Amino acid sequence: MDKPLISHQLVDSDGSLAEAPSEVPKVGILGSGDFARSLATRLLGSGFSVVVGSRNPKRMAGLFPSAARVTFQEEAVGSPEVIFVAMFREHYSTLCGLSDQLAGKILVDVSNPTEREHLQHHESNAEYLASLFPTCAVVKAFNVISAWTLQSGPRDGNRQPEATHTVLEMVRAMGFTPVDMGSLASAREVEAMPLRLFPGWKVPALLALGLFIFFYAYNFVRDVLEPYVQEGKNKFYKLPVFVVNTTLPCVAYVLLSLVYLPGVLAAALQLRRGTKYQRFPDWLDHWLQHRKQIGLLSFLCAALHALYSLCLPLRRSHRYDLVNLALKQVLTNKSHLWNEEEVWRMEIYVSLGVLALGMLSLLAVTSLPSIANSLSWKEFSLVQSTLGFVALVLSTLHTLTYGWTRAFEESRYKFFLPPTFTLTLLVPCVVILAKGLFLLPCVSRRLTKIRRGWEKDGSVRLTLPVDRALAQKTSHV
Amino acid sequence: MDKPLISHQLVDSDGSLAEAPSEVPKVGILGSGDFARSLATRLLGSGFSVVVGSRNPKRMAGLFPSAARVTFQEEAVGSPEVIFVAMFREHYSTLCGLSDQLAGKILVDVSNPTEREHLQHHESNAEYLASLFPTCAVVKAFNVISAWTLQSGPRDGNRQPEATHTVLEMVRAMGFTPVDMGSLASAREVEAMPLRLFPGWKVPALLALGLFIFFYAYNFVRDVLEPYVQEGKNKFYKLPVFVVNTTLPCVAYVLLSLVYLPGVLAAALQLRRGTKYQRFPDWLDHWLQHRKQIGLLSFLCAALHALYSLCLPLRRSHRYDLVNLALKQVLTNKSHLWNEEEVWRMEIYVSLGVLALGMLSLLAVTSLPSIANSLSWKEFSLVQSTLGFVALVLSTLHTLTYGWTRAFEESRYKFFLPPTFTLTLLVPCVVILAKGLFLLPCVSRRLTKIRRGWEKDGSVRLTLPVDRALAQKTSHV
Amino acid sequence: MDKPLISHQLVDSDGSLAEAPSEVPKVGILGSGDFARSLATRLLGSGFSVVVGSRNPKRMAGLFPSAARVTFQEEAVGSPEVIFVAMFREHYSTLCGLSDQLAGKILVDVSNPTEREHLQHHESNAEYLASLFPTCAVVKAFNVISAWTLQSGPRDGNRQPEATHTVLEMVRAMGFTPVDMGSLASAREVEAMPLRLFPGWKVPALLALGLFIFFYAYNFVRDVLEPYVQEGKNKFYKLPVFVVNTTLPCVAYVLLSLVYLPGVLAAALQLRRGTKYQRFPDWLDHWLQHRKQIGLLSFLCAALHALYSLCLPLRRSHRYDLVNLALKQVLTNKSHLWNEEEVWRMEIYVSLGVLALGMLSLLAVTSLPSIANSLSWKEFSLVQSTLGFVALVLSTLHTLTYGWTRAFEESRYKFFLPPTFTLTLLVPCVVILAKGLFLLPCVSRRLTKIRRGWEKDGSVRLTLPVDRALAQKTSHV
Repeated sequence: MDKPLISHQLVDSDGSLAEAPSEVPKVGILGSGDFARSLATRLLGSGFSVVVGSRNPKRMAGLFPSAARVTFQEEAVGSPEVIFVAMFREHYSTLCGLSDQLAGKILVDVSNPTEREHLQHHESNAEYLASLFPTCAVVKAFNVISAWTLQSGPRDGNRQPEATHTVLEMVRAMGFTPVDMGSLASAREVEAMPLRLFPGWKVPALLALGLFIFFYAYNFVRDVLEPYVQEGKNKFYKLPVFVVNTTLPCVAYVLLSLVYLPGVLAAALQLRRGTKYQRFPDWLDHWLQHRKQIGLLSFLCAALHALYSLCLPLRRSHRYDLVNLALKQVLTNKSHLWNEEEVWRMEIYVSLGVLALGMLSLLAVTSLPSIANSLSWKEFSLVQSTLGFVALVLSTLHTLTYGWTRAFEESRYKFFLPPTFTLTLLVPCVVILAKGLFLLPCVSRRLTKIRRGWEKDGSVRLTLPVDRALAQKTSHV
Repeated sequence: MDKPLISHQLVDSDGSLAEAPSEVPKVGILGSGDFARSLATRLLGSGFSVVVGSRNPKRMAGLFPSAARVTFQEEAVGSPEVIFVAMFREHYSTLCGLSDQLAGKILVDVSNPTEREHLQHHESNAEYLASLFPTCAVVKAFNVISAWTLQSGPRDGNRQPEATHTVLEMVRAMGFTPVDMGSLASAREVEAMPLRLFPGWKVPALLALGLFIFFYAYNFVRDVLEPYVQEGKNKFYKLPVFVVNTTLPCVAYVLLSLVYLPGVLAAALQLRRGTKYQRFPDWLDHWLQHRKQIGLLSFLCAALHALYSLCLPLRRSHRYDLVNLALKQVLTNKSHLWNEEEVWRMEIYVSLGVLALGMLSLLAVTSLPSIANSLSWKEFSLVQSTLGFVALVLSTLHTLTYGWTRAFEESRYKFFLPPTFTLTLLVPCVVILAKGLFLLPCVSRRLTKIRRGWEKDGSVRLTLPVDRALAQKTSHV
Repeated sequence: MDKPLISHQLVDSDGSLAEAPSEVPKVGILGSGDFARSLATRLLGSGFSVVVGSRNPKRMAGLFPSAARVTFQEEAVGSPEVIFVAMFREHYSTLCGLSDQLAGKILVDVSNPTEREHLQHHESNAEYLASLFPTCAVVKAFNVISAWTLQSGPRDGNRQPEATHTVLEMVRAMGFTPVDMGSLASAREVEAMPLRLFPGWKVPALLALGLFIFFYAYNFVRDVLEPYVQEGKNKFYKLPVFVVNTTLPCVAYVLLSLVYLPGVLAAALQLRRGTKYQRFPDWLDHWLQHRKQIGLLSFLCAALHALYSLCLPLRRSHRYDLVNLALKQVLTNKSHLWNEEEVWRMEIYVSLGVLALGMLSLLAVTSLPSIANSLSWKEFSLVQSTLGFVALVLSTLHTLTYGWTRAFEESRYKFFLPPTFTLTLLVPCVVILAKGLFLLPCVSRRLTKIRRGWEKDGSVRLTLPVDRALAQKTSHV
């Protein structure tokens, strides 16, 4: 009657262990820090049998999940083939005593060096470990979980010696997608990754900051300094809200146009070169890669601008202005106040602003990883390029209605400085015009051909019948 | 002393290649476009050895990650078992020269046809490729990465001939979850996928648009045209903001009620049929599947409505009205202005609006893929159905407080047209009443029974003792 | 001529089936509810061959994807090794007739008991099923898909008897990451999971609710009751908006400080104990684990506060107040109204509020699963701890500017109750001071040492040369 045994197996799991030990891959862990603990939990969760080696098993046992066996280091490293070293670099040498038990095993170095360590030591922790245990195969892994995304292309990562292979399998079993970074030589670089802070954001953030400072200073001079110097009016209360709120839209607007400028330049370059098989200059490459961040910063500024604008009626100054306006009307015995043109300007201005912000919000939402992944390439490009461009056009109109006739009123040129919004219009208008240019049939046809692999200087392709077909096809457009 | 070799392997990776070639699955790529490049990077990242075949290896080498070997096509297709064809359809025929080297290998067609191509050719790119290389096993793959979600059920996708199997394994190794779409016959359909543009959104978007146009026209007539015709008042400045802002809430409100109407209809249908084992009519099925999109559009309109409302005090017209109101008070020698009822109405109206919007925001957030995945089915249904229904009730109250006594003031019926909000109340009230009806013990008990598999017409089940038990159980409710 | 066969295989899939049957893992499903259907779809999508067993195949066939074979139960359970039981507990016994065909097979119990069932029966559905079919290996699976995240550590989950192993493989093949919960004994606990409702949110939500009620009552007494009692003024119209809007910021502010308090306590505890190798008391542990939820609730309140504040100018009461203010000015023949200090206070107050909200929004966004996953540990901690702390400081300043000199005006102490904002300042200030304290070199150095494993009471570690090195290193700070 071995049949009941089967379900019995499932109830009393020790029985099963005795039965199918081959089923249970065993893993060792040296160290008892937080990382060691979460690693143990994760490995258990993925169905591995875990043995933790500690100098003081009794005390540590309480800190680990009950399923993990916590014992003395000597004992822990005995049976498992793969051993995780989750200790600080400075404790590695304390393992030297175990070198005999460790001989020939796979050591996985999961350490993350501190900034200081990284600069101090020229060899990576992993290489240091490898030097301490020449008889072991050392693999660097898990130190960049969640940091290291698949997009970034690995260096010579196409070789899987046995040891690495085993670890890769484990990583997969644990539900991650591993990236083999190749030979241990690159370990130092791998260890540097978690030290990076938003690498993609540095340049765009500095750009935004620079623009903000420039426009803030510019607006300060025009809106606060000028009235103070010329008419002795004290408008300094405008600094915290008003000036900020005239600066933010400028930054947002310029940044948005800088999202679409590189694309325009790239297209122009391809048109001049007559091929797509040439790398862009690095500065353009980087620019193209940072468009997303620039766009998000632009959205951030736009959102803050909206928030500040909505706060305007909350301010005392706004209330006082209103009351004083009413007073003036009374004292001058005006009966009714209305300026049709001003009314229209403001209505259009507001609604364009709301629409532009709405567009930008959609863009921001679709650049959330989980949503971007659920879009097809065509959907993504429609949202990002088309909607984004519409947003650019809308904010241009928004700016123009704000400016209205002002650009041409002499009184607006304080200290001979043109109004801010006229400055900001330059780049966006260039982008919009260029985009319009590329829509001309002659230009767009040539561009499409190039992007489908056609090359100007009589390349192999053109001589092929297929490409004549293509040429005809596109000429039908 | 081969032990040191192991760690040596990891440092000098060529050694390892020589040692364990079996470890390194080799893959070929034909083509040098962007897709070919990112494919190469991804494959390298997943530990494959990549050989790229190009007509002009020297020039292309620079464009690929250093780890990829770029060589002549003849050479590239030699060793690997699996070869990706990342070229445009019109270049397929240029490969005919390679048919001998390709014989018996697995060709993976990753092409995405353009709209035109898709309409032009009756056979899919993959089938065309198969016809060119009858000796190869052609598999369509990777052209819909990220587009094709697992929900959508594959057609006869339950057979894995060798070739497909190999590719599926690779897809998994690369960290994707593959979907076998079955025989190559369905390739054409697969190739059409990336051409789809938000298939789930078309109908809901059109619905929202239609509602918007209708209500906009309706409000235009009541708020702008009527005063112009009757009293010659020029209110056209209301078009950009005011009329839009009375239209948006109507659309949002009706859409929200349309999210819960199909559920009510489905329940009613199940009650009448007395079973859940009958398909719903297609229109209802589709409606049920588009609830999420309708809900999100409703949220979008509600958010825009909030934004517009908050912009109202920014407008010049608002400022002028205030000043003029003050003036009127002065001229009529009124000393104090206060209308308790109006005050209360507005306070309640505003706070209900804020709460309703808050609810909808929570709903919108929980329908983000990454969050929805982290919820248990019970949590998700609680948020989506319960909270959503609360939001519906709140916005109904919001609408009623706005309407207040107006619905019954004769003066409100311009051109004999009832106020907008009275129109919008119809559907939501029906839904709310029906939902209330289903909560009556007698109805809800029957519904639960049906949803647990019970069937009216004496079905097999009812004859079973278990179901008597169930009947008793449910009767205890 | 078997070569054409290869591509032929792909077109006519039956051919392929006949060829490589070993390729096609066969799975059986008993039941025809919604879960059975989606399970079938998912399995087909992952390349399994599915046979559905039903009492009434003809009627059910229409409900399943065409690729699934729907037949009589007896027939369905014949060939496949693994059989999913997707029925309600009360129907299990109807399968007893099949016990011979099922003998020795793997039954996967996917049922989710209702609350009632879970309380009624002491044995889990899975155990009940196992008792009905002693000859089968019963495995509980799939009932918590999407609910059960990998973080939560499984109980003795490190053993994989054959049956479980097979199922785990399938789960992986279907693109999920399985968690082996170990012996069937834990099935009851597993079945309880989907019944949990936002377990992590209960305490924080109650906390927020409690704070809200307290502060609402407090503000009601000060702002509504007091003027009514003392001066007979009727301010009850303030209840829906005004009082709520003075309550929300208090709740948001206190909650935010409660996010950082536990961290401070933990650090203090480690400093006193002089080691990190001691569990924190449970209440602190739980508190630390709920910080994210508390923070999000704080953000929710802050956002609502912003929304309410922006709505203030929309209210009739606001309009009336303005007009009346203007009237008063006229009647008292005041010509110009301006209070520089009030203006400045408000400007600073508003801009600090906007900035604080902006910070909190960034925090909220980065705690979206999909974004949190794309951040490195260092980036995440920077955003969550540093930015969060900045937000706390900003909101403290926001509160202080609101308070300004009021805290010291006797007139503000209604019923001898201090103004609300003075109450709220207590906890945050404590947190900020403590944080500042921990930045003192002497304290921070000791803390760092402890967190790197150093222990006060002469532990093994300290005797090691490495740690002297460390001691020196850190003393260089």
